[in-house]
Amino acid sequence: MKQILFEQLENHYDEMVEIRRYLHQHPELSFKEVETAAYIADFYKQLGVDVQTNVGGNGVVARIKGGKPGKTVALRADFDALPIHEETDVSFKSLVPGVMHACGHDGHTATLLVLAKVLHGMKEELSGEYVMIHQHAEEYAPGGAVSMIEDGCLDGVDVIFGTHLWADAPYGTIRYRKGPIMAAADRFEITIKGYGGHGAQPHKTKDAIVIGSQLVMNLQQIVSRKVDPIESAVLSIGSFVSDNAFNVIADSARIGGTVRTFNEDVRDIIEDEIERIVKGTCLAAGCEYEFEYPRGYPAVVNHDAETEFLVTCAEEVPENTNIVEAKPEMGGEDFAYYLQHVNGTFFFTGAMPDNVDHPYPHHHPKFDINEKAMLAAAKTLGWAALKSQP
Amino acid sequence: MKQILFEQLENHYDEMVEIRRYLHQHPELSFKEVETAAYIADFYKQLGVDVQTNVGGNGVVARIKGGKPGKTVALRADFDALPIHEETDVSFKSLVPGVMHACGHDGHTATLLVLAKVLHGMKEELSGEYVMIHQHAEEYAPGGAVSMIEDGCLDGVDVIFGTHLWADAPYGTIRYRKGPIMAAADRFEITIKGYGGHGAQPHKTKDAIVIGSQLVMNLQQIVSRKVDPIESAVLSIGSFVSDNAFNVIADSARIGGTVRTFNEDVRDIIEDEIERIVKGTCLAAGCEYEFEYPRGYPAVVNHDAETEFLVTCAEEVPENTNIVEAKPEMGGEDFAYYLQHVNGTFFFTGAMPDNVDHPYPHHHPKFDINEKAMLAAAKTLGWAALKSQP
Amino acid sequence: MKQILFEQLENHYDEMVEIRRYLHQHPELSFKEVETAAYIADFYKQLGVDVQTNVGGNGVVARIKGGKPGKTVALRADFDALPIHEETDVSFKSLVPGVMHACGHDGHTATLLVLAKVLHGMKEELSGEYVMIHQHAEEYAPGGAVSMIEDGCLDGVDVIFGTHLWADAPYGTIRYRKGPIMAAADRFEITIKGYGGHGAQPHKTKDAIVIGSQLVMNLQQIVSRKVDPIESAVLSIGSFVSDNAFNVIADSARIGGTVRTFNEDVRDIIEDEIERIVKGTCLAAGCEYEFEYPRGYPAVVNHDAETEFLVTCAEEVPENTNIVEAKPEMGGEDFAYYLQHVNGTFFFTGAMPDNVDHPYPHHHPKFDINEKAMLAAAKTLGWAALKSQP
Amino acid sequence: MKQILFEQLENHYDEMVEIRRYLHQHPELSFKEVETAAYIADFYKQLGVDVQTNVGGNGVVARIKGGKPGKTVALRADFDALPIHEETDVSFKSLVPGVMHACGHDGHTATLLVLAKVLHGMKEELSGEYVMIHQHAEEYAPGGAVSMIEDGCLDGVDVIFGTHLWADAPYGTIRYRKGPIMAAADRFEITIKGYGGHGAQPHKTKDAIVIGSQLVMNLQQIVSRKVDPIESAVLSIGSFVSDNAFNVIADSARIGGTVRTFNEDVRDIIEDEIERIVKGTCLAAGCEYEFEYPRGYPAVVNHDAETEFLVTCAEEVPENTNIVEAKPEMGGEDFAYYLQHVNGTFFFTGAMPDNVDHPYPHHHPKFDINEKAMLAAAKTLGWAALKSQP
Repeated sequence: MKQILFEQLENHYDEMVEIRRYLHQHPELSFKEVETAAYIADFYKQLGVDVQTNVGGNGVVARIKGGKPGKTVALRADFDALPIHEETDVSFKSLVPGVMHACGHDGHTATLLVLAKVLHGMKEELSGEYVMIHQHAEEYAPGGAVSMIEDGCLDGVDVIFGTHLWADAPYGTIRYRKGPIMAAADRFEITIKGYGGHGAQPHKTKDAIVIGSQLVMNLQQIVSRKVDPIESAVLSIGSFVSDNAFNVIADSARIGGTVRTFNEDVRDIIEDEIERIVKGTCLAAGCEYEFEYPRGYPAVVNHDAETEFLVTCAEEVPENTNIVEAKPEMGGEDFAYYLQHVNGTFFFTGAMPDNVDHPYPHHHPKFDINEKAMLAAAKTLGWAALKSQP
Repeated sequence: MKQILFEQLENHYDEMVEIRRYLHQHPELSFKEVETAAYIADFYKQLGVDVQTNVGGNGVVARIKGGKPGKTVALRADFDALPIHEETDVSFKSLVPGVMHACGHDGHTATLLVLAKVLHGMKEELSGEYVMIHQHAEEYAPGGAVSMIEDGCLDGVDVIFGTHLWADAPYGTIRYRKGPIMAAADRFEITIKGYGGHGAQPHKTKDAIVIGSQLVMNLQQIVSRKVDPIESAVLSIGSFVSDNAFNVIADSARIGGTVRTFNEDVRDIIEDEIERIVKGTCLAAGCEYEFEYPRGYPAVVNHDAETEFLVTCAEEVPENTNIVEAKPEMGGEDFAYYLQHVNGTFFFTGAMPDNVDHPYPHHHPKFDINEKAMLAAAKTLGWAALKSQP
Repeated sequence: MKQILFEQLENHYDEMVEIRRYLHQHPELSFKEVETAAYIADFYKQLGVDVQTNVGGNGVVARIKGGKPGKTVALRADFDALPIHEETDVSFKSLVPGVMHACGHDGHTATLLVLAKVLHGMKEELSGEYVMIHQHAEEYAPGGAVSMIEDGCLDGVDVIFGTHLWADAPYGTIRYRKGPIMAAADRFEITIKGYGGHGAQPHKTKDAIVIGSQLVMNLQQIVSRKVDPIESAVLSIGSFVSDNAFNVIADSARIGGTVRTFNEDVRDIIEDEIERIVKGTCLAAGCEYEFEYPRGYPAVVNHDAETEFLVTCAEEVPENTNIVEAKPEMGGEDFAYYLQHVNGTFFFTGAMPDNVDHPYPHHHPKFDINEKAMLAAAKTLGWAALKSQP
Repeated sequence: MKQILFEQLENHYDEMVEIRRYLHQHPELSFKEVETAAYIADFYKQLGVDVQTNVGGNGVVARIKGGKPGKTVALRADFDALPIHEETDVSFKSLVPGVMHACGHDGHTATLLVLAKVLHGMKEELSGEYVMIHQHAEEYAPGGAVSMIEDGCLDGVDVIFGTHLWADAPYGTIRYRKGPIMAAADRFEITIKGYGGHGAQPHKTKDAIVIGSQLVMNLQQIVSRKVDPIESAVLSIGSFVSDNAFNVIADSARIGGTVRTFNEDVRDIIEDEIERIVKGTCLAAGCEYEFEYPRGYPAVVNHDAETEFLVTCAEEVPENTNIVEAKPEMGGEDFAYYLQHVNGTFFFTGAMPDNVDHPYPHHHPKFDINEKAMLAAAKTLGWAALKSQP
């Protein structure tokens, strides 16, 4: 079975590349991926696979039933692109100015479509059921996962697997991790509402820049003083803006930043601490403030047993020459939500371009992947799906 | 003599208003006051007074010699305007979009021209010599005073007087002060050159916003810890700008501010302390920086005897109903330089418009003066000039 | 009259020295000056002058009525000593271990007693009345002035004069100042009540040292941001104590300091700001605190006319070779209270020992005065008293 | 073999208790454990076991050779006590005022001695060699482990095991962990050498309390900004002492704290950052400083294979009803050094007294252990030693 799966995937590798390149040329922004969704749906329709569209928005779900009873295994690929203007020299460069598949979701989709085609071809021999979740809008909170789940994409699902093609890791690598593998990524925005005036008359003002600077200093103490040292957390302030003439005292200052955590308790503590520090600092200064803390995706927390299982599957894929425990990544992923509903695991498939020392990072205008990684990902996901069956 | 002077000035009050309004309609920015300089020079030429043009730039100097020997007394008026778009409803509104006499220099010039005309008319009776210094570029450092002095405008001068029409003070007011009456006003600009990165990876960065916030906190301690409490000083930061995406750690931050002092030693201490704090804070953070401290005008420090003398003169002017000691003003004036070369005094002549509770401040688009104050100023300056004679 | 006064004082200079030295050997602490008060009262009794004892505590008041009607002039001298162990080598060293006249109050008392004796001798010729206020407890708040005033020592008084022998100023100097000459000196005490724990578990604590450090930083901004730059104010923290094992997180920290101001509004602002900053900083940290701000003496604010008058008197005293305007002193004096009730002025009489470059400061165990300054002070005060008469 | 070992240990349990209680009554401080060392050596001499004394100080090492060839396994127990005055009510309370076995080392020693006796009795049947390392001075850096290793206690050793009786964990618990299980615990001491003065004259001083507060704020940013968020680290300041009169500006301040890390790179980074921040902050303030960073023990980093092996052994001990992965402990242990030389693992044996909810923590005057835990520890260590043989 494994051999057939692997050979079939190898035979369809060119198609995988073709699909990926087509999608790369036709990127669409999160929540606007209408054409891409139609392309995916068409692919299934041509195969004769039953496909659901508009699942929780632009989501597409295809279910392939095996000939024998078994478990229901979900595989997920996301398909939205980013508001980045491509600067690569590839022949299949984005045709949409300012929009680019700069995170590899084109590859994810090509991988899953071709894997679906192969599984569909083998379906009489297969046990169980295979749910292909093509998710829109991973890049932009609140993301597509929540609404697709609400719309039933996980109904009857026993286990879920997902991967991210990862340009930071050399081709041949699988990075797995039990427990938290990607962080919860939240955003916060604070406006200090002081009282401005002439630079020579501080006593008639409430100096928003001084208050803001106190706030920055005080916020830095949350990680060092309020988070259990064996937990991971980051609080970074990305912007501090109060742009006035040099001889003016600032009326207001805008401070924005991000919080990354792997543990919901730590996340709650940090949000509470930020709010209390803002409140106390502004009370001390006698000024007003605005505070917003829109939560991003929660942490991606892999299930232990499914992760161990995935490793045993990955070890049987010849392409996977380097299977290693991942350090937790501080970036966010709405795959997190699936794992709150069903068991499963999310892993990284090394996709660093060949002959490159320092690959361009994800979300860079010159980002690219190693297309061979799609085959490794398809084999790993596919074999994990089949091997899940009793 | 006093009576003649006062009557003549009263007789020419309408001309004063006319000149002021003409200048108000034709404002020119600092260092670009070519037409205004030509207007002033023409005025003197028509009187038959010997006039020097292009003194240290656009400066104009006229010397009126009395019939008898005596002291040489200089009187100074500045004539540049500001990059402000006028928003008043006066009939003689600025004809130049974006440029406005929003500080009363039009009134200063009208006052001095008419006073010169009157003195010229009385010159046979007068002792000594009267130097009319029409200074360009007071509003923009390095100002016109330094170059006019270098170009000889103070040659032979024994004493100098100057006034500012002051919309904050009610008509009828003279504000004098021995010693410092206006502050040295300097500017500083600091760029923190940290090392940016992803918001989730602080350990790979040097966070320019955190470093900048430390700097703000540390700079605030100069006034409270390094300045003699009985000296006055202000250090205010007007801008803190590091505007990045919320999930980025800042590569650099730009911080700009102003320092106001009345004492050159304090000024030196503050400049040195800022530089040392920037240096130490950046050393602590392992980052680079840029630091500039372009000095503005020094403090205007009035001479005691000349100030006491001016008060006695002012008391003889009927318009001056309220002669009071001024609190030092934190704003700057390049009249400071004249007083570094010759004895003299600078004072404020109340010019608040009638029937106004809260006059628009200087440099405001709706700023206006009480034109009657020009007559009070002309009498006070003129009588101080004549009474200086032995 | 002036000549008689001066000659009489000169004739009694040796007695002045003798009295001063006796008092120097027998110092008594504030509020415990029983023997000194008795000594003073005896002096007056032997003269036959009517004397009141136990005025508002250990205070002594003698009233000398002139033969003719006139103003009632009060002169004040304080007579308490300090808890300092004398380390000088003078022959009349303190006989009381740990107690010393290290501020010159012995000299003040000798000056006033001898002046009283001389005035008493001249009384038939004199107009008006002379109230000799011998005040206890100047060194220790709440001081003796308030209770002596409540007990009537200023009843009927038209004007008051006082001086401090000042070892910082060379002999021959009189330092006067209109308005504030000595600061209000307050104390504050803050206890941060955090929540301690093991140094390795910050998340279970509220770290009192970090909170206290924030507080120090924030309090330093009051002077730089909340006080009008042309006003003088100092806020200094003298103690920060949280002394725990190195591997413990502090449960509490104690922070104490002082505030010096010349203006009651500024004093109120600073007290309010400290309290608000403590409150806000502790709110931000989620901790409790204790805050006390026991006020010391208010600023000594001299009256303008009486100060100008004193200068004219001082100029007639040959010993006063250097009459200069004082910079305001940041130390406190309860003479402040007298000036809140009647007009008057307080000045410094130069008392630097001869042949000394750097005199030991007041309150130093090696402090000493130039005894000749007592004569200068007696003449200045005495002549001011007599010249006050119509 | 396992059965024999376990039965023999059970048979000698009373002796274990007896030894532990004797040692508990006769505690000795670190580096002064002469009598305890003699007691241990005597025990072995009476058994007829070859024993080395004065190993690297007061250390004692006994080697028991089995009848057959095999691996050399080391087991370690520490035997020093603490400078704490016992406050328990046990019948075998410390007889030495101010010194107490408040960390369970008495139990460690009793466990190892009885285990040695049992192994010695079985030695003909045993393979390999058993090295009993009785270590002095664990509680006080630099500790006894380094010098014992230098003195040969690990010569020929293939693997080492050690345990700590742990009152925090219920009886029946084994806490193991691959990789770091206990932190490196360092100490630092900073003296700010400012320049003191009168509280009213800040401009003549370098205010050590303000500088120290800046330092505290800046040091708090190391963990939040300079440590990889997925690493654990703590920097806590335990003492901030500058105790002066309220109206004085501090001349110096003393700041002491601790750093806990699990990774040597992080440890190096933190030490470097502290030093740079101290240097930069003092440069900014223009003051001097003293800085010391005496390193404590490194992190205890368990080897993976030996830890997995220990778990399999522990599972065979009936007393071990709850074998769980430990969270890393932030406290230090010089067992760390053994693991830098040979493979092995260190684990915690639950020793919470029965019928207690909140046991007194280690180093508390009322600390006690559950003596039954000694038997569990002896079985686990003993079986791990025997099962290590081929």
